[in-house]
Amino acid sequence: MRILGIDPGIAIVGFGFIDKIGSKLTPVQYGSIQTEAHTDPSVRLKDVYDATTQLIEKYKPDALAIEKLFFNRNVTTAFTVAQARGVIILAGVQAGLPVAEYTPLQVKQAVVGYGKAEKQQVQEMVKIFLKLAKVPKPDDVADALAVAICHAHSSTMQTKINEVVKK
Amino acid sequence: MRILGIDPGIAIVGFGFIDKIGSKLTPVQYGSIQTEAHTDPSVRLKDVYDATTQLIEKYKPDALAIEKLFFNRNVTTAFTVAQARGVIILAGVQAGLPVAEYTPLQVKQAVVGYGKAEKQQVQEMVKIFLKLAKVPKPDDVADALAVAICHAHSSTMQTKINEVVKK
Repeated sequence: MRILGIDPGIAIVGFGFIDKIGSKLTPVQYGSIQTEAHTDPSVRLKDVYDATTQLIEKYKPDALAIEKLFFNRNVTTAFTVAQARGVIILAGVQAGLPVAEYTPLQVKQAVVGYGKAEKQQVQEMVKIFLKLAKVPKPDDVADALAVAICHAHSSTMQTKINEVVKK
Repeated sequence: MRILGIDPGIAIVGFGFIDKIGSKLTPVQYGSIQTEAHTDPSVRLKDVYDATTQLIEKYKPDALAIEKLFFNRNVTTAFTVAQARGVIILAGVQAGLPVAEYTPLQVKQAVVGYGKAEKQQVQEMVKIFLKLAKVPKPDDVADALAVAICHAHSSTMQTKINEVVKK
């Protein structure tokens, strides 16, 4: 199963494709979509949508995992990110992908095993899980890979539960 | 000039197309896009996007005017509406429309002439401006028409300012 993890944003969208074969996780491609600050906000939304659609077409994931928004002190920023999140989810649904959403707490719990883990701990674990030479930058990329890993672990867990139920 | 006014939402999106010829405003079509409550949230986003795209293709507006979000006590609802707003703006940009955003204050100011006007006053003024037999329901439809009227008035004003500058 190939998972696309996304850390949504309007200036920077982190993305990470990982393959999960058995319990083994392999990074396929990761990076960021960046939009121009001086561009019209509605055009930036289209840029995020177009880039996401192109990435999905190129790397053909089986699922989209995206970080849920938590309340931010800057409401305007939070709304802007939510709008970007909307067009990213749209790109996933249009490609027929199931969309899974995880809170930052769930991501930390799944990646570090501790919901209150520091950002640096999450990034270190991403590096270790995916056998990367160094922590990917910017942070949004590592966060996107963390969401993908979270989904990989969650879907493993669901499979196990299903097996127990079937017995 | 044909203006599409939108009151964004995920359960109900109000829409209103009005034609502005000189200072005269004529309603073309108005109504609501409604999505099923029990449908997957990401599919509802796609439903809103698809319906908006179809409306734009059918009624061919020259501009999209959409209400800005204000801070809502229910953050989850506000984020959900922001995501819907994202896909609606995307549909507009993809059709090549300029997108104008107005706060509820600006809409009230433009339609009633008073930024703290009550909802009912706005609706009554929409009825009067567009010579409707009654206030359109649900409220989201009247709100969408109000945003369209706000844009009609704002663009008139901008034209006047430009003329002054050109002298």
